[in-house]
Amino acid sequence: MKFDSLFKALKEKAKVVDEAIFELIPEKEPKVLYDAARHYPLAGGKRVRPFIVLTSTEAVGGNPEKAVYAAAAVELLHNYSLVHDDIMDMDEKRRGRPTVHKVWGINMAILAGDLLFSKVFEAVAKIPVEAEKVVRVLDVIAKTSNELCEGQAMDLEFENKGTVAIEEYMKMISGKTGALIDASATIGGIIGTENEDYIRALSKYGRNIGIAFQIWDDVLDLIADEEKLGKPVGSDIRKGKKTLIVAHFLENASEEDKAKFFKIFGKYAGDVKGEGIIEEDIQEEVKEAIELLRKYGSIEYAAKVARELADEAKKALKTLPESEARKQLELLAEFIVEREY
Amino acid sequence: MKFDSLFKALKEKAKVVDEAIFELIPEKEPKVLYDAARHYPLAGGKRVRPFIVLTSTEAVGGNPEKAVYAAAAVELLHNYSLVHDDIMDMDEKRRGRPTVHKVWGINMAILAGDLLFSKVFEAVAKIPVEAEKVVRVLDVIAKTSNELCEGQAMDLEFENKGTVAIEEYMKMISGKTGALIDASATIGGIIGTENEDYIRALSKYGRNIGIAFQIWDDVLDLIADEEKLGKPVGSDIRKGKKTLIVAHFLENASEEDKAKFFKIFGKYAGDVKGEGIIEEDIQEEVKEAIELLRKYGSIEYAAKVARELADEAKKALKTLPESEARKQLELLAEFIVEREY
Repeated sequence: MKFDSLFKALKEKAKVVDEAIFELIPEKEPKVLYDAARHYPLAGGKRVRPFIVLTSTEAVGGNPEKAVYAAAAVELLHNYSLVHDDIMDMDEKRRGRPTVHKVWGINMAILAGDLLFSKVFEAVAKIPVEAEKVVRVLDVIAKTSNELCEGQAMDLEFENKGTVAIEEYMKMISGKTGALIDASATIGGIIGTENEDYIRALSKYGRNIGIAFQIWDDVLDLIADEEKLGKPVGSDIRKGKKTLIVAHFLENASEEDKAKFFKIFGKYAGDVKGEGIIEEDIQEEVKEAIELLRKYGSIEYAAKVARELADEAKKALKTLPESEARKQLELLAEFIVEREY
Repeated sequence: MKFDSLFKALKEKAKVVDEAIFELIPEKEPKVLYDAARHYPLAGGKRVRPFIVLTSTEAVGGNPEKAVYAAAAVELLHNYSLVHDDIMDMDEKRRGRPTVHKVWGINMAILAGDLLFSKVFEAVAKIPVEAEKVVRVLDVIAKTSNELCEGQAMDLEFENKGTVAIEEYMKMISGKTGALIDASATIGGIIGTENEDYIRALSKYGRNIGIAFQIWDDVLDLIADEEKLGKPVGSDIRKGKKTLIVAHFLENASEEDKAKFFKIFGKYAGDVKGEGIIEEDIQEEVKEAIELLRKYGSIEYAAKVARELADEAKKALKTLPESEARKQLELLAEFIVEREY
């Protein structure tokens, strides 16, 4: 199928990067701390960010072996942010397994996240390239983790606001999801080349697919096949999660429809069902809310934005010479906005 | 007085470092995040760790101006760990002000700590020395922050244990307090010299005064003048904090005395007083517990260990050439185990 070669490449690269990851977070004392830190990395996952690092290095003509610790660094950074975000969002499950704080408690989860964050920098110090490049990678990672914090802070602020504007949402998601994928591509470029045009092109590619990835996720939550998604459609509506779709709706809907929407939106946050309320009735309400979003074309609007961002990303890659690696990065951009789960 | 020149030097150096710190964490958006991150750094403090960085650079013949961002980095690392530790310990006050999580809530406190941690690495990337040295400093900082997490994890584990051995305690405190002061001196050395003997000597100095500092703090909690200390004597007994003094007592006391001690130890954790219990009665009990510690010479034992560590630290400095800076570091070692608050 169309994405078979991409999936194969993802798997191969994940294997190499996992070795570096588990060398950095081995089984050791204090056992409880390292067990908690290893929980998400051990759960597997596609390792998309490490893939982008290694493939970006290749795409600019560099040696991907030199980028393995950089790839481990971005994956550890991603995992640290998942652990802490899950605490803040009070999420109980991730990829079907209990979250770190559900298993080890909030204190150990804070600490496990901190350890993962610390290991990011141990990984950076190990990148086997000229020291000048290591320092540049360090600077990119530090600024990216600043952006992650700023994006998450904005997201927390959204929870306390009645509304969210499209512009604000795009800024938040650029920090929370775009920054790290931008950094993955940028760092791959820094390690592989001296050509600043290539590095800039990769940065643009990464930022755009990062944002597209999150928007597409939010679209899928509303339109996907429940079986493929592994959760009920519209779980973001239950939680009251402010997405681009919701921002578009709030900027376009009539007051009457907004009022109808807000009666349902966020009503079942934290899986609270209330007494006597049954699952079928909740899904009935969620479907009403989704119909309201459809009425104003908000879902199609977000899907279109995601597709345009993926196109922009592919266009940015044209700066790079043609190669198998560039092809893989293009495929990844397509996959992000064509996937059904 | 004996320490006047030390205090003057501390103040002067704090001023320079604070400029770098607040350049890294300015007032900016998202305001709530940056306000929370600035809360502890704005509260002042002696900036002992930055002082050690700058003075160590001087003591090996280097230019302390090149070490300012390194000094800011260790202070930010210290502040990040305070913010997260205060959440874990459920502390409500620090230096007389409410803790970050008391003002902004646990979520924003987690995030503010994360941002401070992130800024550590932004600071490291700015150190104006050869890139090879920056990478070496990065590696020291990453390993130190690993040690901080490991020490804190051990400390959390102690809370769930009935007892603690002297050896375990020393290992925990070496990570939780020794590592960062070791790193401060080591990094100052790395920036200022190529002489590995000097760097090793500074590392030993830092580790020893770091451990001595914490032990002396625990001694002061039991013997200090309440007015100078700013809190009731024996607050660690109320909380049930496992210190070297307690570890010594538990290894030496009779079963009967241990039982008596455990009836009081930790009884008033979290300032819970229980109904009808008055402050005077609590202090009466705390004094009984302190008498038990005295009976086995546990307080004097810990004070002696701290003094010996400070002496070891001063001895390590003899490897360095004589200088005003070395003198200041010696004075600091003496101050740490002579201070009354």
